Amino acid sequence: MISRVCVAGAGVIGSLFAGHLARVAEVSALTRRQDHADALNAGGLRVSGRSDFTVGIVASPDPASLPEPDLVIVACKGTDLEPVAARLEGHFPGAVVMTVQNGLGAEEIVRRHGAWPIVSGVTFMSGTRHGDRHVEYILDTETWVGPWEETPEAAAVEIAELIRASGLKAEAFPDLRPAQWSKLIFNATVNAVAALTGLPHDPHFAAEERPSDLGFLVHDLIEEGTRIAAAAGIPLREDPWEMNVLATRRGSAHYPSMLEDVEAHRPTEIELITGALVREAERHGVDAPLHTALYRLVTAKEASYS
Amino acid sequence: MISRVCVAGAGVIGSLFAGHLARVAEVSALTRRQDHADALNAGGLRVSGRSDFTVGIVASPDPASLPEPDLVIVACKGTDLEPVAARLEGHFPGAVVMTVQNGLGAEEIVRRHGAWPIVSGVTFMSGTRHGDRHVEYILDTETWVGPWEETPEAAAVEIAELIRASGLKAEAFPDLRPAQWSKLIFNATVNAVAALTGLPHDPHFAAEERPSDLGFLVHDLIEEGTRIAAAAGIPLREDPWEMNVLATRRGSAHYPSMLEDVEAHRPTEIELITGALVREAERHGVDAPLHTALYRLVTAKEASYS
Repeated sequence: MISRVCVAGAGVIGSLFAGHLARVAEVSALTRRQDHADALNAGGLRVSGRSDFTVGIVASPDPASLPEPDLVIVACKGTDLEPVAARLEGHFPGAVVMTVQNGLGAEEIVRRHGAWPIVSGVTFMSGTRHGDRHVEYILDTETWVGPWEETPEAAAVEIAELIRASGLKAEAFPDLRPAQWSKLIFNATVNAVAALTGLPHDPHFAAEERPSDLGFLVHDLIEEGTRIAAAAGIPLREDPWEMNVLATRRGSAHYPSMLEDVEAHRPTEIELITGALVREAERHGVDAPLHTALYRLVTAKEASYS
Repeated sequence: MISRVCVAGAGVIGSLFAGHLARVAEVSALTRRQDHADALNAGGLRVSGRSDFTVGIVASPDPASLPEPDLVIVACKGTDLEPVAARLEGHFPGAVVMTVQNGLGAEEIVRRHGAWPIVSGVTFMSGTRHGDRHVEYILDTETWVGPWEETPEAAAVEIAELIRASGLKAEAFPDLRPAQWSKLIFNATVNAVAALTGLPHDPHFAAEERPSDLGFLVHDLIEEGTRIAAAAGIPLREDPWEMNVLATRRGSAHYPSMLEDVEAHRPTEIELITGALVREAERHGVDAPLHTALYRLVTAKEASYS
């Protein structure tokens, strides 16, 4: 029975989890900055958009000063995961830790810092940060969870139930990898193409008429990713091309996080997303020329910041 | 005997030709803007940098008001070639027309507007524009010329001699295509990669150590281009990989024009350069997945301007 949750990383996704879960559990937040924690402790966390409420939560940049949780949701970006996991090391020995980073490999990074049972997560929620104490809930899409390695499936089922009780959408799977890889291939394609072209995820990504049309490249990238998944023995839960076409038909074009990152000259999640996919291709002996090209182009784009 | 030259397009390359050639011939310039012509007519053209002089030239946006030339050097960017060639239509029936645009296909565009003998050119010169009347000569590298289709080789030889007499470097070839294709493959690779990554042509383009290094992609792109040339029956005059490595070892990194174009949100030469290479691949039945990917990415980047 989960009654206390700690959200590690209070960005958009962390704040959406913290805000909703505070309605059904005692929630704390591990922040990076003391002033962020002070603001949350003083005024609570406001969620607007598809939900609308303000809740009280306990926040601190020091895990030792937070109550012992039953569940830790590590909700930071992949580029911050190593330092966040390092700060959790030695704390919360009775907790289950859940990851929700894009790409592959978050669980292994967490494991290097503690023996907690780990639950894998993939989230399709999106929101906009309006300040330290205010997040807007935009896309009310699902979070998928599943047990990682020796973790019992029941842990994932209980977490999905808690998330649903909080007003968010969630589903538990005995094996998350078919869902995780569907999103991996989708993300590796859409994020890298958006970061390189400057286009949000708009109808260009599905256009397949003239030879220069971007949709042909997107299609080829998704097929290359699907071949890697097949070589790794992972059946996909969803067709990433269908995910792509559906997403480009929504009214307003989504701004992929990797495009936001390169525009702000921040490190991207390229290593955890496309880098992970390219290493899987190599491990399983599959050619991946297109994702490898994008991996090198986005890495070079990061090098252009300085 | 060439005694009058008209340079059509007085940007950097056109101004470098006009300025130097005015020391050995009567030079006119076909400009786009009347005020550009007025400034040149009033004060002459200054060349600084590796050369240093000011010369008088006759300029106008109207070819009918320029003296009849023996040679027209069409020196505009590839993206402006169609309108410039259209303005030449019906004029200068006794002239030889020389193209120096990047990529492939400039000669065919000129041919659609007149029956002039055509000489193909490739130039490696570079400079910086400091105003309507002032261009700085930076890289004093060669211009290569050769006869196109039925044009006698002697026309190309005479043009190369004139360019050399003016103080620039030039060489004539019986068949320009081996040189033109070397530069095509180099340009298709370096320009598109620079435009997508934001990197000038710096040592990243030759780095081949870590799996994410850009040099591996540059190498693969050049090998793909070389396979297309082989299928088209064109032996390369220079190894584009060697051209790349040498260029990245110069002191200051060159800023490829396609990178300048995307930063200024201008149309790029992607269709004439990478688009031409991709169409040659298709025509000769060779796979070109990497150049095709870059072709679609840069085209999509242009679509992101609006």
